[in-house]
This record gives sequence, C-alpha cells and structure tokens, in this order.
Amino acid sequence: MDTLYRPATEPSVSGNLHLERYLKVRRYTEALIAPLTPEDMVVQSMPDTSPVKWHLAHITWFFETFILSRLDGYQVFDPAFGYLFNSYYEALGPRQPRAQRGLLTRPSLEAVLEYRRHVDNHMSVFLSSDLSPEVTDLLELGLAHEEQHQELLCMDVLHLLAQSPLKPAYNPRWAQPATGRRGQFVRLDGGLVEIGAGNDGFAFDNERPRHKVWLEPFEIADRLVTNGEWLEFMNDGGYRRADLWLSDGWATVQAQGWDAPLYWQADGNNWQVMSLRGLQPLQPDAPVTHISYYEAAAFATWAGARLPTEAEWELAAVAGALEQAHDTAWQWTNSAYLPYPGFTPGVGAVGEYNGKFMSGQMTLRGGASVTPQGHARPTYRNFFAPDKRWLFSGVRLARDVK
Amino acid sequence: MDTLYRPATEPSVSGNLHLERYLKVRRYTEALIAPLTPEDMVVQSMPDTSPVKWHLAHITWFFETFILSRLDGYQVFDPAFGYLFNSYYEALGPRQPRAQRGLLTRPSLEAVLEYRRHVDNHMSVFLSSDLSPEVTDLLELGLAHEEQHQELLCMDVLHLLAQSPLKPAYNPRWAQPATGRRGQFVRLDGGLVEIGAGNDGFAFDNERPRHKVWLEPFEIADRLVTNGEWLEFMNDGGYRRADLWLSDGWATVQAQGWDAPLYWQADGNNWQVMSLRGLQPLQPDAPVTHISYYEAAAFATWAGARLPTEAEWELAAVAGALEQAHDTAWQWTNSAYLPYPGFTPGVGAVGEYNGKFMSGQMTLRGGASVTPQGHARPTYRNFFAPDKRWLFSGVRLARDVK
Amino acid sequence: MDTLYRPATEPSVSGNLHLERYLKVRRYTEALIAPLTPEDMVVQSMPDTSPVKWHLAHITWFFETFILSRLDGYQVFDPAFGYLFNSYYEALGPRQPRAQRGLLTRPSLEAVLEYRRHVDNHMSVFLSSDLSPEVTDLLELGLAHEEQHQELLCMDVLHLLAQSPLKPAYNPRWAQPATGRRGQFVRLDGGLVEIGAGNDGFAFDNERPRHKVWLEPFEIADRLVTNGEWLEFMNDGGYRRADLWLSDGWATVQAQGWDAPLYWQADGNNWQVMSLRGLQPLQPDAPVTHISYYEAAAFATWAGARLPTEAEWELAAVAGALEQAHDTAWQWTNSAYLPYPGFTPGVGAVGEYNGKFMSGQMTLRGGASVTPQGHARPTYRNFFAPDKRWLFSGVRLARDVK
Amino acid sequence: MDTLYRPATEPSVSGNLHLERYLKVRRYTEALIAPLTPEDMVVQSMPDTSPVKWHLAHITWFFETFILSRLDGYQVFDPAFGYLFNSYYEALGPRQPRAQRGLLTRPSLEAVLEYRRHVDNHMSVFLSSDLSPEVTDLLELGLAHEEQHQELLCMDVLHLLAQSPLKPAYNPRWAQPATGRRGQFVRLDGGLVEIGAGNDGFAFDNERPRHKVWLEPFEIADRLVTNGEWLEFMNDGGYRRADLWLSDGWATVQAQGWDAPLYWQADGNNWQVMSLRGLQPLQPDAPVTHISYYEAAAFATWAGARLPTEAEWELAAVAGALEQAHDTAWQWTNSAYLPYPGFTPGVGAVGEYNGKFMSGQMTLRGGASVTPQGHARPTYRNFFAPDKRWLFSGVRLARDVK
Ligand SMILES: [Fe+3]
Ligand SMILES: [Fe+3]
Ligand SMILES: [Fe+3]
Ligand SMILES: [Fe+3]
Repeated sequence: MDTLYRPATEPSVSGNLHLERYLKVRRYTEALIAPLTPEDMVVQSMPDTSPVKWHLAHITWFFETFILSRLDGYQVFDPAFGYLFNSYYEALGPRQPRAQRGLLTRPSLEAVLEYRRHVDNHMSVFLSSDLSPEVTDLLELGLAHEEQHQELLCMDVLHLLAQSPLKPAYNPRWAQPATGRRGQFVRLDGGLVEIGAGNDGFAFDNERPRHKVWLEPFEIADRLVTNGEWLEFMNDGGYRRADLWLSDGWATVQAQGWDAPLYWQADGNNWQVMSLRGLQPLQPDAPVTHISYYEAAAFATWAGARLPTEAEWELAAVAGALEQAHDTAWQWTNSAYLPYPGFTPGVGAVGEYNGKFMSGQMTLRGGASVTPQGHARPTYRNFFAPDKRWLFSGVRLARDVK
Repeated sequence: MDTLYRPATEPSVSGNLHLERYLKVRRYTEALIAPLTPEDMVVQSMPDTSPVKWHLAHITWFFETFILSRLDGYQVFDPAFGYLFNSYYEALGPRQPRAQRGLLTRPSLEAVLEYRRHVDNHMSVFLSSDLSPEVTDLLELGLAHEEQHQELLCMDVLHLLAQSPLKPAYNPRWAQPATGRRGQFVRLDGGLVEIGAGNDGFAFDNERPRHKVWLEPFEIADRLVTNGEWLEFMNDGGYRRADLWLSDGWATVQAQGWDAPLYWQADGNNWQVMSLRGLQPLQPDAPVTHISYYEAAAFATWAGARLPTEAEWELAAVAGALEQAHDTAWQWTNSAYLPYPGFTPGVGAVGEYNGKFMSGQMTLRGGASVTPQGHARPTYRNFFAPDKRWLFSGVRLARDVK
Repeated sequence: MDTLYRPATEPSVSGNLHLERYLKVRRYTEALIAPLTPEDMVVQSMPDTSPVKWHLAHITWFFETFILSRLDGYQVFDPAFGYLFNSYYEALGPRQPRAQRGLLTRPSLEAVLEYRRHVDNHMSVFLSSDLSPEVTDLLELGLAHEEQHQELLCMDVLHLLAQSPLKPAYNPRWAQPATGRRGQFVRLDGGLVEIGAGNDGFAFDNERPRHKVWLEPFEIADRLVTNGEWLEFMNDGGYRRADLWLSDGWATVQAQGWDAPLYWQADGNNWQVMSLRGLQPLQPDAPVTHISYYEAAAFATWAGARLPTEAEWELAAVAGALEQAHDTAWQWTNSAYLPYPGFTPGVGAVGEYNGKFMSGQMTLRGGASVTPQGHARPTYRNFFAPDKRWLFSGVRLARDVK
Repeated sequence: MDTLYRPATEPSVSGNLHLERYLKVRRYTEALIAPLTPEDMVVQSMPDTSPVKWHLAHITWFFETFILSRLDGYQVFDPAFGYLFNSYYEALGPRQPRAQRGLLTRPSLEAVLEYRRHVDNHMSVFLSSDLSPEVTDLLELGLAHEEQHQELLCMDVLHLLAQSPLKPAYNPRWAQPATGRRGQFVRLDGGLVEIGAGNDGFAFDNERPRHKVWLEPFEIADRLVTNGEWLEFMNDGGYRRADLWLSDGWATVQAQGWDAPLYWQADGNNWQVMSLRGLQPLQPDAPVTHISYYEAAAFATWAGARLPTEAEWELAAVAGALEQAHDTAWQWTNSAYLPYPGFTPGVGAVGEYNGKFMSGQMTLRGGASVTPQGHARPTYRNFFAPDKRWLFSGVRLARDVK
C-alpha cells in the first residue's frame, strides 16, 4: 500500500476527534485498495458498478464540493473533476454518464491519489479549526458517504473479479464467513411502537422522523438463512416452481436463467462460491449471500414464512432479539423504500442524497461483512431494486402469529 | 350491436339475482364492443394492452375454467382455448405469450362470440340451480373480473385508436369529462384507524384483512387536479426540472421524451386531447388524466404537497370527505402495492389473481369514468407500475399538518 | 370473394391490351385475399411483413400517385392515404412507420376495397385513352409492383398463420410443391459473356444496363436442393458445426436458435412443415424452401460446392441448362446486390424503387411457386438480407471446374 | 518505454532476415504502447474495439499457437491464455466473448509483457534454425497479423481517448495529416484485365487467385476527398437529405444522429477534430477520415460521382494513377467483400482468418496513416461493415465515362 499512497502530513491529532475520525475513514479506503492493480481499479464490470478509481475520486469530490468549496480562497484541485466525479446531483450540473465511468482511463490512479492527498491536506487544516454545527453535519455525512462507498467498492471489486475466467482472489486472507446453527423464530408482541431515528446523533434523512407504527404480534428468525437451507430450496425445485415466485421475479428467473445465487458455480456435484477470498467450496453452515429480493421472497414462500417488514425488523433489533444483525449480510424486508410520514429531505444539493430514490426499491436492514464497523445502526435503511444480487444480501425470515 | 351478438336464450330470470347480475355484466361487455370493427378487435397496440377479442374470450374462459369445468359432464367449448386465453395462471399450464396476443387472427370474432353464447347458455342453466357459497364466491370473482376487463378494454381501445394518424373516435357520444372548481384541502385527524375489507361481502383478497394503521393528522384535497393546474405545472418547466422528479421518473422523462400527459397533442398554441370521443380541445376545468405515478409525484412536489397514502385515502373516502372519488380517474397513492399484514391469497389457481403482482407497483385508489358502475369501493386497491400512463389515472393531493 | 369485392364496371376491353393486363393483375390480387378474414388482413406479424390490407391499399396508391395524380382534374380518394400507404418514397413525404403498419385498424377493409374500385374505375377510363410511352412504362412498373406485392402477400400471410398455435391453412387446395429427382451438375464454359436486360421490353432499372462479364468455366446444378438432402445436412450436424458457416451466419444460428428451416416443426421423429396448405408432413423429394442465405452458404460448404454468382446463374438460365428456374423457389446467389456498371436509377420518386436498397443484401435469381406467372425473367434480380427466411427461397449449387 | 519493456536477449541477428523482420515488427508494437498507461491498455471502449493489452497478448498467442505449439517440447506459457486471447478461431475452442475483453484486468500488463518476452525468446531460437516453407508462410502470416493489430491498436486507442471528456492526446508529436490540392479525375480504359495476387510473395488468401475481370472505361480521382469538400457536402444539407443516401445509410444517420464525421466536434462556428495528437482544429486541405461506407456513398452521389470498384481501384493503383494510395486513409470501394472466383481458404484453423467474414462487409483498398510501412500492397483487401467509422477511412471518387 505504501507504494500507492503517501499519507497527508500528519498533524498532531490528539484531542481532535473530528480529524481523527476523518483520517481513520480515509485511511481505511486506502487500505482497501492495497491488493488491487491500477487495471483492477479502472474497469467497470456492469452499469450498476463503478470503477474503484472512480469511487476514490468521487468520495473525495464530495468533501471538496460540500465542504472545501464553500471556504474562502479554496481552489478546486481540477475543475474537470466536477463533471467526472459527480454521481447524481442534478443541482450540481451535468456529469459523466454512469454507465461510462469505466471509460475514464484518465485521470490516472496516481492523479486521483494526488487529489485525495490535496483534499486531505485541506480538510486536515480545516478540521483543526472550530466547526459550525452545519459543517459538522456535512462532515458526518461525508464520512458516512465514504463508508458507504467502501462497501460499494467491495461489492464492485467482487463483481469485477467474478467476471474473470481466472477467478482471482481480492485478498486470500479476507475474513471467512461466520458459520453456526440455523435460526429459530422468536416471538414479539408488536402494538403501537415507534421506529426511526430521533433527533440526536447522526442519521440519514431517510431514517427520520421517528414515528408511530402499529404492529400485530409476529415471529422473526434470530439468525439468517444458511447455504444449506438454500440448497434444500434448490433441491426442492425452488428455481423451477413458478408458484413460489412473484410474477416479476419469475420473469427475471427465466430471462436471466437464474438457478442458484449469484456467485455459485457448479463443480461436478458440488458448488464453489466466488468470494473476496477467491473461488472456495460452499460452506453449508454459513449464511447465504448475494440473493435478490425476488429470491428471498420465493424462499420465504417455500419455507411457509415471509420476510419481515422494516418496522418488525427494527423493533426486534432494538429488543436485542436478533443475531447476525449488522455484521453478516443485509436483510431484505418486505417494505418498499418510501418516505416515512413527515419525511423532509436535506436542504440544497444534499437533498438529492436519498429522497429521489424512493421508488422501485425495497428496503434492507442490518449490515454486512463488508460494511465498515460502526457504520450501520438499527434505524439504518439500505435499499436496492428487487433484482439486484451483487450486494452482500441475505435472508431473515418472519411469520404471522396465528 | 345486434349484428354482432345474439343473446343467449333468455330464461325467466325474475327472482334469480345471480343470473340477473351475470347477464347484466355480460351484456355490458357486448354493448362496449358495439362501436368497433372486427379489425379494431384483433390488434394489440403495445405489449401492455390486449386485443378486444382476446378480452372477450379470456373473461369467458374464466367462467368456463373456474366454474363450468368443475361441473359433471361439461365439455369445454374448444380445448385450444385454454392455451390461447389463459392470461397468467401458471398453475393452469402454458399459454400464448402476452406480447403475442395480437397474432391471434383466429379464432375469428364470430367464433369468440359463439364461445360467449355457449358459456352463457351453460352458466344460465347452472345459475338457476342452488349454488354453494364457494361457487357464489367464484361467480362474484368472475363478474368482478369481467368488470375489470371492461375497464381494460376501454383503456386498450383508446390506446389503439390513439396510435392511428386518423385519430378515430371510439364513440362520439361517450360521456364528457366532468368539469368544476379546483380542489381544496380538508383536514383529518388520523390516529389508530382500521382500513381494509371486513369479512362480509365481496372483496378481492388483496383488500383483506381489515387491520389497524396509525395515521398522523393530514390534509387531503377534496377534488382532483385539473388540466388547467397541469398546464401551470408545464408552463413552470415541470417536465424540464430534474429537482421535481424521482430519479427513475426523471430517467423516464428523458428516455421517453415526455413533455405532457399521454394523450395530449400540441395544436399550435393550444392542446388537443385524444379521448374515447376522438380528438378534442383540452378542457382546463376537467381533471387531468393519463398521468403516470412519476408525473403525479413530480406535480405534487411542485405544488408543495405530496400524494396521500392508501390509508389516508381510505379514511378520507369513508369519512365522505372526497368528491370525484370513484367516477372520474384512479388516484395514485404514495403506497407501494404490498400485502396487508396477515394477507393470505386465495386457494388454488385463483390464488394467482393478485398476490404475485405485489412487487414493483404503486397502489391507486378510487375509480374512473370507465370503471363499471358499482365495481369499485373505498377499500379497492388498483395497482400499476409507476411509468404506466394508459390507465385513466389522475392526481389527488395531500399534505402533512404542520 | 363476391361478398368482399364488386369489380369495377367492366368496359368492353376487347382489343385494349393495357386494360386487359391491368384488370387481370388487379383481379388476381383480389382472388388471393378470398380465403382471408378481415382480421387476417390487418395484423402485422413482424416488422418485415406488412398487413394484407396495407398491401391492398399500397399497390393501389402506387397507381394513384404515379399515374392518376398527374392527370388533370383527378381528385385523390383520401388525402390521408398518402401518409398511410406510402412505403418508402422519401421524395413523397412522411409516412406511417413501417413497423407500425399493423396499428392501422382504420381505414376498414371495406374502405380499402372501395379505394381499389375508385382507382380501378379511373384507371379503366384512362387506359382506354392513348398512352404516352412514359405512362406505359409507369403502367408496366405499377403492374410489376402489384405482382411483387402479390408474392409478398403470400409470404406475409404464411408468416402470420405460422405464428398461430392453431396453424390454420390459408388454402387447403393451394398447389403442392413439385417433387422429383435430385439435381446434377452441368458444365458451362463461361468466357466473356453479357448479362442484364437490354433496352427492349419491361425490366426493372436494377437489371440494366446489359454489360460484359468474364466467367471462368463452372458447373451448376440443374435442380434445387431437396428436403431430403437438407435432412442429411442436419443429420451431419449442419446447424452445430461452426466450420461450415460464415461468421455472421454462425452468430445468427446461435442467437436465433436455428436448427432447421423456418417452417419446420418437429413431430416426434418426423418433421411437419407449415405451408399455405397448413401443417403437412415433410416431403423429402420436394425442394427445400424458406432458407436464409447463411443457411444456403453453409449447406453449399458442407456439400463441397458453392452458390452460383448472378452471372453464372443467368448464363445457365438463358442457355436452358436449368430446371425449376422460375416456378419453385428463389435461388440465393453468392453475389451482393449492387449496381451494374453504368447503372442509373429511374427519374423522380420512382428512382427510389431499387437503387437505394443496394447495400447489405444478397441477390436471388429465378422465381418461386408464389411468384405470379410471367412476372420473372432470366435477368430478374430479387434481393434480401442474408438472414431472412420468410421468402420462398431455396438452394441451387454450383462449383468450380478444376 | 524502457520501464515497460525489456527486450528479449538479443542474438546476433546479422544475416538472419526472418529474425530481423520478426524483431522489427515486435519492437514496433512495443514502441506504439510507450505513450500509454496501464489503465489505457485494459479498457474496451465499445464491442468493436479491443483493449490494447488484449492486442498485445493476442498477437503473441498467434505465434505461440500456430508456430511454437507445433514444436517438440514447447510448453505453453500459460494454458489459460488459449481461452483468453483466441480471437475468433472456432477450431481452437471456446474463448473470452469479444464484448467482454475489457473485463480482463488480469493477467496484468506486466504478465502480458512477460508473455511477449517468453514467446520472443522461443521464436528467436526457432527462427535461427532452418525453416520449412510452410513455417515461413505461417511466420509471414503472423507478422502481417501483428501489423494488422498495430493498426487496430491505433484505431482502438483513438476511439478510447475520444470518449474521454478530457480528450487526451495519445502522442502530441504523432504525424500531421498530409494536406494538399484537391483531386482530379484521371481516365482509364479498362477492358479485360487481371487483378488479385499471383502465386509469388506473401498475400492473404482473400487476395487470390489472380483472375480476369472486364472493366468498362472509367475515371478515378487521383487524390482523396478533403475536409473542405466534406464541409461543402455538410453545408449543402448532406446529412439531412434522404435522397443522397442508401436506405440503410439513411436509417443509420437518423438512429445515430450523425451530422458530421466521427471525430468532428463543433466549437462555435468552427470544427475541432479528435486525433492521435489530441483535439485539433479542422484542416480543410487534409483528407477527410473516419467516414463510414454509407457516408462515402452519400458524398459520392452528392458529388455526381460514385465509388470505384475494387478492380478499378487496383487497375488504377498498379497503373500509377493514384496519389495517397497507401499512406493516408483506406478507401471504400463499391465492391462487397466476397470471394474471388476460385478462392480457397487456408488449411486448418488458419482458414478462418478471412473467408468466414465474407458477408455483410464492403471492401476498402489502399492503406492509412496508421498502417505499418510496407504492410499494404495494391492487391490488399481490407473490409468493414458499412456503418463502421472508427477505422482510418476516406473517400476516393470514380465515375463512368459517358
Ligand atoms: Fe456517492
Ligand atoms: Fe384477467
Ligand atoms: Fe411497394
Ligand atoms: Fe487477430
């Protein structure tokens, strides 16, 4: 990693919590790219993914645009970067089309790392000054944003490497998935409960406001569905039985030829799974991952259960009823990603962060093995379209109490 | 109409309410096709629509399949029709692909009308006998189904005729849209309320079970948005301002080149609107129709409001707070079409009627000018994907109480 | 047919050869549609085909546009028809998009037949007058044009009916394909020969000018490849051996899943073939038809032969060396459809008839069972893109003399 | 360049012409990549292009597969490379899909350069031995193949860099296009002439056999059409006048929105052109390049001329009548790329080199500024589909003698 990155001049950061947190997040990004070649970092393996180099620059652009650019006298590193590395903020002007991010062989990785150092240097100076609450909020947002892209980076790297006939490992020493017993249903009473983030502490706008929800009594599994359970579903014709699937899901199964989770690869009578550790034998006792909402819903139907709603999941998580909540795989809920009652998006361009994506997606709750530590919380709302599989997603079951 | 259709031998139906209702529904279908030529009835104008002839046969096949075929000694009219006129029931076997229904020039219209007479004759005899509750439920379902297709038939005919450079009228004497004053917000208190259909009377499975929902206080418009209000939105750059749109909506605007509702056609400085009455001048005081969810949501944002949720709409409708609830245009809600808590689909193939479509669609409430009288009710849940515009859909606004 | 068509008032045509020929061609078109329903005539089964009703109107529009409209005082039957029934003449203005001809449920068939009568009446009067050579040329072109559409109509009807799960016969008494012995190679010497149409008599512009070509000695088959020979190719893995195919052809085989000629349908261990007579058992001794250029070329490679060039075919045809030249199936040549040396297109809109299609297509020679009698000639150049199969096309082999 | 490439141990090559030629060609490839970053070499900018790194490996694989692998005791460098770097040889087994060559971030550039060194070392030893005529032919083929890919590499690099909003120069010192006077027609008599390669010397199989062709007298321009002439075409509505275009060409113009040659970019009232030297002002006196066949044909029609046939071009080139024949831009002919009379493809997998592409493409003659010196010759047949524009193609006019 040293050859790629020379850290910003290190100020004495003792006592400056903002700066410490900033540098810690930024360093983790650079640690993540250490195993990659420049070529790994420029290619875009499908329109949903972004090149690693683009991630590196975009999360830096976020700090530059929303914090540094508002400071007197700050000069942007390169005026072209506003076009190249804006993701989707319409209020900030035109930008490189998403599906063509992989055409950006220039600027080089070296220039992007130089950009990071430039912004880090300026941020380090700035964070040593007194910060207004508004800036603190933007800093927290920028750091949460970079953490989200750290996870995206892992998703995108795995997808890229999985396309290679060579099936190269990203990092052979990446953590193994946790194995363990199968889940059991636990019962919760429901009633008139409150969910969502309160006013204190950092949360995304989509987690607010905290609000009342009525819940009937329900049961929820304390652990995630395992690969072994998924094999039972498959062996029972799970991918061939239309009756188990939502209509759109069944159409997707047929159009895409799905017959197993995304990264499973038949190997004679066994299965191999492509992972950040490379191609490895399937572990029956590990949680199944890289599952679309359609597959999760079909599995639940097959199992005589259903997926939990957002509110059920959050109630159970807060109640401490759930294992594997935040560190294993995101868990599809049966709730569409829609605004909470009374939702108001952030002000200005930042208001585009979440609200405009509130159609066509399902909410996931929890967190995954690639989610940076401390990033998620019980009120956190992740969201993807129901056919996506390249995220680290799994299945937690729920059911009605009869 | 006489030339096309000779009604089934008319039994004395006095006192037989089932038979009277059956024949009334069936006759209305035939009245609807009277203005059409055989050529109008065979063409499929886009994959979402079906040919009128296909509708005529499919709704007949529904009675034959779910009622007559279970009777001792009944012979199906033509064994090939199971393949040709099954819509989406996987449990009933393979079927003509949806997008290729317009290739079915055979059987001829005459044969399809003969099929209707055959089924009507058998149904008339059967309905004169004692009916079990289960059969009564299927009869009600079949009739509600035919009524749904009566509305679809109007939607599909309008879409077909609108594709013609000749812009022919379906029926020049079709009812004019109701005009009137603009809407005003009325306030409702919310609280812990109940929505959904109870156990009595006919309702689709998706309207059940009745269940509790917590609602914050809210305001809802007593009338629908008018063409004149829509023009204000357009004149204010409504179709050109990304900030008003959901991300998927904005992508659709650009990909489809939307700059007005579906059937609007610029005519110098004025607008003409294609309707079942043919091409007619825009009426500013009539409700806007043929609006996608994306457009409805963008308009609401522009207007400083939002769309109501399903529960808000139902509460207000039951409270009698709404004009134009059931007879003007379906009203997009901001609720995704998902199962109610405790939802269980019907048993057997009929279970595919609603449940499997519970992904990717938004719920609409109310009813439209083309909805058969008496078909809808306050608990009724209509649903379409957010980009669809060929339904008779409009906009009712809501907003939070500050 | 009587119910559909009331012929134009019949003048005494004795002695008027132009009028006799005109009425004969026009009547044959109407005879061709006698077995069809109005619904059969409105549907477009793929973008390459046109609805029969459209053909009926278009070939009438051709006479109206290129002959009647130039006469003093002639009123066009309906000004909208110029938009609806222009095929591809850019010089004549915009037109209904080709792929959307099937949306034209109006004008009705009855109106189109009325259009035909109107034009026939005016043409009958006009043809009874003295005709300039220029008009005679246009008349010949219009009649040849209608004959081409008579063949297209047969192609398009077969394609439409073949899409139906009912596999209806167009006409159960349509002529059976001629069976007979397999072909044998005959040798021709080549040398400096002349091909193409001379100045006398009617020919399309693409057949001219007559010009010199040098040919090496070659052999050409005296009959067409049979279904039995094609089965041998298939049984030898013809559709699975990449080495036999052109690169584009192999890509098409894989993308389209071709494993037999277009209208073949496996029936246990046997084959059925959809034809204008309906679905019938394969006849091994009949010529194979509905073959793309890609398939023809692959077969020729498999057979150790090649396809003839245009010039070889024409030389052999003129020499009387060929059976099944004009009445069985069009024969793919290995010549691209390009202008002859010195080619000049017709003047005015008529110049768009042939010349602008001279890219991306291969030439076929001969004529088919659906080609109107007397329509083709040895210099005739038919042309289609190499992946098309809905034409009545077959294979005649050639090879070099070693 | 040194940092990227350490040449193979240099034998004393004096007197070994094969080895000298081999090393010269191989070195030129490496010189071509010197200005590029590893990231530039891995990205595929459209399905038609290949990543530079893929070119580097593929042309090496060609020598390994067709020469080294047949030698006793040779061990392939990496067995996976057969899958990764086979282009289209079906006889050699499955391979990385063409459109997914850009997903190959591994093997790294360094590994590919190591592969080149490995093969160069073995080839150097082998070429120092006595070579059979068959091997000499394969060597010549391999070198001509690498030269073709040197040109492709330039085409693909320009296309990639042109996609970048930064419009980076490949090499600011790359040669300027030659400017000069406009062309003039020269007359040739034609007659019974011979074209094609004779039996002596290297030529591709598609250039053979030499054969007789009859040509009418014709005129051909001695120079290529200039940018200034192209501007006149554009200013005369060239891209907006359907009458000038082939039907497929006009459809392409509309579907692609063409209004200028590929790399032209409007800059106020002027034009900039993207080139290997970066974005530069249009030079009116330089030949127009990056023109599709469709555009070339439309221009010729506009100019009252036509494109030459292959035979006309070759006759004129051999006669010394042409300037800018081989060093400026490939020249579209009006001849389809089809086999010469008596054509026989090479034996074995090498037989797939040319023959299977003989459909759907037009022949170009001459050579371009990016064609390696000495690579082309008067009988050389280049070929591309008529809509392609990323090649260095231009226009030379011809016309009939009246
Ligand atoms: Fe971002
Ligand atoms: Fe239905
Ligand atoms: Fe025509
Ligand atoms: Fe190659």
